[in-house]
Amino acid sequence: MDQTEMKQMLETLGANAKNAARKLATASTEEKNRWLQAMADAIDASEAEIIAANKIDMEEAAKAGLSSAMLDRLKLDHARIKSMSDGVRHVISLPDPVGKILSETTRPNGLLIQKVSVPIGVIGIIYESRPNVTVDSTVLCLKAGNPVILRGGSEAIRSNIALAECISKAGEKAGMPAGAVCVIPCTDRAAVSMMVKMDQYISLVIPRGGEGLIRAVVEQATMPVIKHYKGVCHIYVDSDCDLARACEIIRNAKCQRPGVCNALETLLINEAVLPQFAPMIDAALHDVTFHADDAFKALVPRSVAAVEADWQKEYLCLELAVKTVKDLREAIDHINANGSGHSDSILTNNAAAAEQFLNEVDSAAVYANSSTRFTDGGEFGMGAEIGISTDKIHARGPMGLDELTVYKYKVRGNGQIR
Amino acid sequence: MDQTEMKQMLETLGANAKNAARKLATASTEEKNRWLQAMADAIDASEAEIIAANKIDMEEAAKAGLSSAMLDRLKLDHARIKSMSDGVRHVISLPDPVGKILSETTRPNGLLIQKVSVPIGVIGIIYESRPNVTVDSTVLCLKAGNPVILRGGSEAIRSNIALAECISKAGEKAGMPAGAVCVIPCTDRAAVSMMVKMDQYISLVIPRGGEGLIRAVVEQATMPVIKHYKGVCHIYVDSDCDLARACEIIRNAKCQRPGVCNALETLLINEAVLPQFAPMIDAALHDVTFHADDAFKALVPRSVAAVEADWQKEYLCLELAVKTVKDLREAIDHINANGSGHSDSILTNNAAAAEQFLNEVDSAAVYANSSTRFTDGGEFGMGAEIGISTDKIHARGPMGLDELTVYKYKVRGNGQIR
Repeated sequence: MDQTEMKQMLETLGANAKNAARKLATASTEEKNRWLQAMADAIDASEAEIIAANKIDMEEAAKAGLSSAMLDRLKLDHARIKSMSDGVRHVISLPDPVGKILSETTRPNGLLIQKVSVPIGVIGIIYESRPNVTVDSTVLCLKAGNPVILRGGSEAIRSNIALAECISKAGEKAGMPAGAVCVIPCTDRAAVSMMVKMDQYISLVIPRGGEGLIRAVVEQATMPVIKHYKGVCHIYVDSDCDLARACEIIRNAKCQRPGVCNALETLLINEAVLPQFAPMIDAALHDVTFHADDAFKALVPRSVAAVEADWQKEYLCLELAVKTVKDLREAIDHINANGSGHSDSILTNNAAAAEQFLNEVDSAAVYANSSTRFTDGGEFGMGAEIGISTDKIHARGPMGLDELTVYKYKVRGNGQIR
Repeated sequence: MDQTEMKQMLETLGANAKNAARKLATASTEEKNRWLQAMADAIDASEAEIIAANKIDMEEAAKAGLSSAMLDRLKLDHARIKSMSDGVRHVISLPDPVGKILSETTRPNGLLIQKVSVPIGVIGIIYESRPNVTVDSTVLCLKAGNPVILRGGSEAIRSNIALAECISKAGEKAGMPAGAVCVIPCTDRAAVSMMVKMDQYISLVIPRGGEGLIRAVVEQATMPVIKHYKGVCHIYVDSDCDLARACEIIRNAKCQRPGVCNALETLLINEAVLPQFAPMIDAALHDVTFHADDAFKALVPRSVAAVEADWQKEYLCLELAVKTVKDLREAIDHINANGSGHSDSILTNNAAAAEQFLNEVDSAAVYANSSTRFTDGGEFGMGAEIGISTDKIHARGPMGLDELTVYKYKVRGNGQIR
C-alpha cells in the first residue's frame, strides 16, 4: 500500500467511525449491551479461527526472533480467549456511564442548566503486543458510546484483525452502526503518523505501550492524548514505622507481580531506621537484586551500586532501587523529581507524616500504609479499566467507563435573551 | 537573544514555575487570597506605570499600522485597569476549588479511597492582543493552585511585562513562592515553539487567540492543550415555533455583542416556516448582512449568495449565514458537520424536537429556546472563566476554577497487600 492509498484508507475509516459516533452517542444501554452480548458469543464461537490467525503471528514472531516473554504475551489459547469473552460479559454488567446528570442549576433568569455525561467521540487506541487489548479496549469504549480505531503491534496484526472482524461483524449483525470498530489493516509506521493527525475524526488517542511508542504519539498527535506511561512507583519507610509489616508490604509491592506498572521500583528508607531495617528487608527480598546507594550497600553488601539512571528506572522484574533519605522532605522531593506520577506509598505510624505525604506527592494515586499494587480499576471499584493515566488532565490513575466520557451542557429556556 | 540564550531563559522560567507548583499545591485558601489581595492593590497603585508602558505599545502598534479595532483591544486606561483589579477581588470571593473530596469509598479490604481535587500544575497561557488576559488568567490559575507562564502578543509586550511584574512582585511580597507568575520577556516566535515542548515543566497549555495561533500550538505541543477555538454558533428555527419570539432571540444572539465567540453565526430555518419567517427576520435584522441560500435569497433579495465557506465562518460582525433545511435531521447534521462544537440552539414548541436536538448536537453547550449568548462562566454561575473550551476532554464550554483543577486518589490503609 503506498502513502496515497494508505491516507485514503485511513480517511475512510475515520469518516465511517465519526459517522458511527453520532449514532452511538444516542444508543440506549440495552442496545449497547445487545451488541456486546453478540460480541462475547462470537468470540467463543470463533475460537478456532482466532487461534489459527494467532498461530501465524506466533510463527512469524518466532522467526523474527521475539523473546519468549514477548511470544508469551502474543499467544492466544482457549483460556485466554475465554477470558476475553468473559471480560466482555463483565462490561455488560457495568452501569452505563452516559447520560448521568452531573450537576443541575436553575439560573435567576430561569435557564435550567444541566451538565450531562456524554461520549467523547472516536477514540484511537495505539498499542503493542497483547491482542486481548483489541477486545478489552473496544468494549469499554463502546459501552461509553465511543467508536474505536485500533492500531496494534505489527507482530499481532493477524490476531488483531481476526478479533476485530469477529466482534465488529457480530456487533453490526446485532444492530451496531457500521464503522464503529476497526483495526488499521497495515503495519506500516507511517499509518500511525497519519492517524494521529486526523483530528477531524478522532477526538482522543490513548497509546498503551513502551516509552518510545508513547513519546512518538505525543510528539506527532494533533488531538488530545491520554498517556498510560510507565510506573516508577515508590515506597517510603518512615522513621516511625512498623518494620515487620513494612517488609510484608514491600514484598507484596515488588514481588507479587513484578511486571506490572503499579509494582514497586524504588524503596526509600529513612536513615534513622536503616541499620535495623536493612537486614530485615535483605531477608524479606532475598530473591531481589538491589541497586542501592552507599549507605544501604554498606549494610547489604550483595547490593549493586546504584547509578543515577536507577532512580527513574521501571525494572518490571525482581530488581529494586534502594535509597536512604534523611527525612520525609527528602523522600517527597525525590519522588516528585524522579517518579512517573503513578503510585507512591508511605509506611508510617505518624499521622501527620502520612498526611504530608498524601498532600505533597504529586502522583495519580498516593498511599499511606498499603502496597502500591492497588492502583487498578478493579481494585478501585470501577469494574474494569482501559489503563492507568499518568497525565495531568481529564483522568488520573485508573481510567474506567466514567473516564471514557466527557460532558456537555444542556440548557433549557423559554425565550431568554441576554 | 539567540536561540541558546532563549532556551536557557525558558528552562529557568520553567524550572522555577515547577518548583513553585509544589508550594502552591499545598497553600491554604487564606494564603492564596492574601496574594491576590496584594495584587489587586498593586494594580491600582501602579496605574501610572502600567499606562506608561501601554502607551509605548500603543505608539509602536500605531506605527506598525494595526487596525483601530486592534488598537482599541490593546489600550489600557483608568477604567480598564480598575476593571482588572476588581476582577482580582472578585476571584478572591470565589470558593477555593482545591481540596474538594469528589468521591470517597471504603473497599472490602478496608482501604479508604478518596478522590480529591488538586491543582493541575504549571499552566502555559499563550494569547494575543488584550493585556487584561495577563491578569485575569493569572489570578484564576493561582486561585486553583497553578503557577503560570504567560506568553502574550508581541504588540502588548511592554503592557504585559508591566502587569506581570506588578502582580508577581506584589504576590511575592505577600508570601507567594517566587516563579509562580512570569511573562516570557521576548517576542520571538521561536520562544513559543520551545515553550510548547517543555512538558517536563508545563502540565497544560491554553492558547487563546485566532485559529492560526491555536493550530500552531496544537501541532507543536507535547503537553496537553485545551483549545478555546472559534464559535460558529447556530440557531435552528423549527417548523413549530413562536416566530415573533424567535426574531427577538436571534436578534439578541447576533447583535447584542457580535464580536464574541458565543454570538450567532449561522441561522437554519425549517422550510415549512420559511415563507412566513423570512420577511420577519429581514425586518428584525435590518442592519445585518445575510449570506443566504437560494430559497432565502428569493424571499429576501438584499441577501448575498452564500458560498460553501460561509457555513464554517465566524463573522464576529453584523453578518449572518442563512440556510433553509427540510427538517430537524438536516439541521442537526449541518451543525455537527459545520459547527465548531461551541453553542447551538433550537427554537421550537415541540418538546420531542428539543430533546432530540439537545441529545444529538455534539457541542459544549446546546440550548432549547434561548439565545446562544449565555455560554459564559458568569452566566453559568461559575463566577469567572479562563475561556470557553471547544475540546472534547477534561473541560467543555466555560472553564472556571473547578476546570483548572484535576484530581488525585488518596488511599489510606493499615497494611493492605494484594
